[in-house]
Amino acid sequence: MRTHWISEEIVTEMNGARALLATLLDSGVNVFFANPGTSEMQLVAALDAFEQMHGVLCLFEGVATGAADGYGRMTGRPAATLLHLGPGLGNGMANLHNARRAGTPLVNIVGDHATYHKHLDAPLESDIDSMAGTVSAWLRRSPSVAEIGRDTAAAVQAALSAPDAAGESRDESRTGTSGSVATLIVPADVSWSPGARPSAPAQPDTPAPVGAEVIDAVAAAFRSGEPTVLLLGGAALSEAGLRAASRIEQATGARVFAELWPTRQRQGAGVPAVPPLAYRAEDIRTQLHGTKNLVLAGTREPVSSFAYPGQASELTPPEARVLRFPGRVDADLVAALDRLADVLAPGVEPVLAPRAARNLPSGGLNVANWAQVIGALLPEDAIVCDESITSGLATLPAALVGAAAHDLLGLTGLSVGQGLPLATGAAIACPRRPVVCLEADGSAMYTLSALWTQAREHLDVTTVLLNNRSYAILRAELDRVGATTTGLASARLLDLTGPDLDFVALATGMGVPATRATTAGQLAEQFAAAVAEPGPHLIEAVLGADPGAAA
Amino acid sequence: MRTHWISEEIVTEMNGARALLATLLDSGVNVFFANPGTSEMQLVAALDAFEQMHGVLCLFEGVATGAADGYGRMTGRPAATLLHLGPGLGNGMANLHNARRAGTPLVNIVGDHATYHKHLDAPLESDIDSMAGTVSAWLRRSPSVAEIGRDTAAAVQAALSAPDAAGESRDESRTGTSGSVATLIVPADVSWSPGARPSAPAQPDTPAPVGAEVIDAVAAAFRSGEPTVLLLGGAALSEAGLRAASRIEQATGARVFAELWPTRQRQGAGVPAVPPLAYRAEDIRTQLHGTKNLVLAGTREPVSSFAYPGQASELTPPEARVLRFPGRVDADLVAALDRLADVLAPGVEPVLAPRAARNLPSGGLNVANWAQVIGALLPEDAIVCDESITSGLATLPAALVGAAAHDLLGLTGLSVGQGLPLATGAAIACPRRPVVCLEADGSAMYTLSALWTQAREHLDVTTVLLNNRSYAILRAELDRVGATTTGLASARLLDLTGPDLDFVALATGMGVPATRATTAGQLAEQFAAAVAEPGPHLIEAVLGADPGAAA
Repeated sequence: MRTHWISEEIVTEMNGARALLATLLDSGVNVFFANPGTSEMQLVAALDAFEQMHGVLCLFEGVATGAADGYGRMTGRPAATLLHLGPGLGNGMANLHNARRAGTPLVNIVGDHATYHKHLDAPLESDIDSMAGTVSAWLRRSPSVAEIGRDTAAAVQAALSAPDAAGESRDESRTGTSGSVATLIVPADVSWSPGARPSAPAQPDTPAPVGAEVIDAVAAAFRSGEPTVLLLGGAALSEAGLRAASRIEQATGARVFAELWPTRQRQGAGVPAVPPLAYRAEDIRTQLHGTKNLVLAGTREPVSSFAYPGQASELTPPEARVLRFPGRVDADLVAALDRLADVLAPGVEPVLAPRAARNLPSGGLNVANWAQVIGALLPEDAIVCDESITSGLATLPAALVGAAAHDLLGLTGLSVGQGLPLATGAAIACPRRPVVCLEADGSAMYTLSALWTQAREHLDVTTVLLNNRSYAILRAELDRVGATTTGLASARLLDLTGPDLDFVALATGMGVPATRATTAGQLAEQFAAAVAEPGPHLIEAVLGADPGAAA
Repeated sequence: MRTHWISEEIVTEMNGARALLATLLDSGVNVFFANPGTSEMQLVAALDAFEQMHGVLCLFEGVATGAADGYGRMTGRPAATLLHLGPGLGNGMANLHNARRAGTPLVNIVGDHATYHKHLDAPLESDIDSMAGTVSAWLRRSPSVAEIGRDTAAAVQAALSAPDAAGESRDESRTGTSGSVATLIVPADVSWSPGARPSAPAQPDTPAPVGAEVIDAVAAAFRSGEPTVLLLGGAALSEAGLRAASRIEQATGARVFAELWPTRQRQGAGVPAVPPLAYRAEDIRTQLHGTKNLVLAGTREPVSSFAYPGQASELTPPEARVLRFPGRVDADLVAALDRLADVLAPGVEPVLAPRAARNLPSGGLNVANWAQVIGALLPEDAIVCDESITSGLATLPAALVGAAAHDLLGLTGLSVGQGLPLATGAAIACPRRPVVCLEADGSAMYTLSALWTQAREHLDVTTVLLNNRSYAILRAELDRVGATTTGLASARLLDLTGPDLDFVALATGMGVPATRATTAGQLAEQFAAAVAEPGPHLIEAVLGADPGAAA
């Protein structure tokens, strides 16, 4: 469907950069997150010809890629990035990794030297293709202005396709992902040469049909009377998916779990509550103990995030049969879950989480009470980006389940530095919804300049910066890998004091108003004020060392 | 040469991590710059057993890799990095790219999942090898505790070898580089398993001999009477190399130039002054116009950093004969230059730059006067890390040539975000020398947390943050690539106002004392105070828009 907002006159004089932007717009991509350089200047200049395209400046590429991930998770449509050559791509890799794990639709545009310039091995020359290949389900280097239009349309189509449909096979057991990272490498002379034409958008794939035999086979497992677990991920964590799962749970007695750090999960009051799998492998083993049928809907078999000496990494109980539902990544997972619920639970209603009583804790802030404050005061229909790591693992899920209904975006690829960019992109995607970013101190320091973009774009993001002044998760992991520490040298590598990071100063320095809270009361007051006022805010929540001090 | 500081008792109970650290120490590597994760916890714990090893915590991997680059440039020995899996490597790629271009010896250690865990495709799994291969002259994945000692020794040897000797051929025309990026991938179970033994250090390569016929052939070009240019890079920019070049210049009338952004160049009062090649291709063409013999010593044929429409990228004059001296990357470049000077200029003394009169400018700070302040007040034997980009291109070389003698470290790979990390590593390498970092505002935001490491380690670094509130170089590049801009959309992507970055707040938030200067007098006062006081300082030099306002 062409929107025909481009006059033919303009079309005939397009260079490659303009054809690329025109094709993106025609394909429904109207935002890009950019940290450009010389080789991308034509794409920057082309912005002036297309006022419908919103170019968002990021001061670091990891902010651009993480923001594109947040945008794609919230809209189901890709944003584009604009990165400068191999080093720019390198800076964006960590959050492209998270986007790949999330199944986010994302068009990753990397500028390159002019085609005739590459053999000279100029200072910024590097092997972009090899690096990009490690995160991209689809990768193409556009060879000429004759191809740039159709290559752009193909990139958008690939971004909207499930990964294996786009050529990646590793995630084949994960169903219901909405998209892929598609990388388009654009040489500078392809951007600046005339004679390009935009391409009509590619037709989106239609979901693969799910046969009745697939539904029946899974239904039989639920009806077997054996202990059955339904593990949800991807689109199964949408409200519709959760309602279907709750009906199945009510009717069959199966237990239902969610991925720990989801791409996007609806939760809170009025939404079926599904507990997440634990972080620690030993706890997941307890959760799944005795399971005879493990039904995977939009997720993969659970594995330990890391290996630990003497422990198995596989977490599916050895005696369990694994059923992948609906068995194809390109099927409509939510529709399939609905059909399954209709078979297993006709007339059964889902159980919805009640709104929890608003109990505001008091006393010094600590790991046990901060999440209660957020749960009590979370605004309606917020988007919650969670990179609270250790500060949230024990208490956040319980605090959020009775909060106002919201979308939760998690750390899908475990690569830290995601929270602030993700919140930035989510806020661009949903300008009328409040965004709350729960961010750990160590993780914040990878992509902190996302705050500047939030200020530049006047985004309604409230960041709660959880400052425990350490890489707390690594202290725990040090013990778990059986490492013997005897001295200060190792301790210094996990400690973020000396000097203390002052996040109020850091946020203020990037134009984001900031306050500091050391008590639960202060956090409540500051959080309520921040979400009530438009624009970005940051609250540094300094967590005390002693959870026993909680009131 | 084993130093035998490890008792045999400890040796017999070593795990892979301890054997790795012991081998590094025995091989002369006693610093690593770390941003570790779970898979590197054994290496962190092993620090406690080796107090000679200095583990430096960085809050972002690009700081670690840039610091290792600075350390290697100043010592000629590699520092190690410690990075967490593929995403950690990704974050470190941009400054590894710069280190590769600098020919810096660097042992890049990347932790990975346990060998038996990789096939599970856990959340942080990615293709580390393909990514690392794009920046590494040497790359090995250590397969077992039986191999970790010798693999570590091999990594150090590779880091101390010229790139093509280590397997990379692209830089074959660049002589006199001191080292390479050697990447060692260490699976977690290799780190934690017992039974490893440290390995004796590998013998360093001896320089390849330079035959008399090589000296004679180049000498003939200098004696030809034709216009001859000697272009210096790498080790040729050491004081000894520059003295030899100056003698040749005096005796033969050849013109001498230096690479614009050198790995390490000695300059200032008492050192032969060599003008750098310009940044813009058209200016380099003017510099080299009419050259009949182009002698490359430690550098490669000049090429345009980027391609521009309608301009050739090659900058060697078409009529020039190119001579690579001494023709092998693994030769001793400085010794060869000395021999050449003895042949061409017996008894001729080099011309040394005089100390310039200390004229301190006054008036509002701008691109024309800030460098004069630094040149006038630079302390003796400073290390100057230059990432001033547009703010320094026109005025810094002239200001530094008459300053106190110093080492200049440049942006070798053109990948921004290098200055602050480079200064951090240089200060660790040379704790008794003052380090001055000249840093552009846009570039600073990629790796700003280097300031925290400077504070943590009490490093004597004075950062002059040149704030022109824009990506000024991109504004210039926009014109040069022939891009037509007509509106605000493109301008917004090159502008760093709205909000203004407050670098005083940002530095203070990371524990570095900071001040702001808007006049040349303030900069002089604050710079003199900062270099007089140990420890890190930052001065935000706000550059006015009108250079005509300079007094």
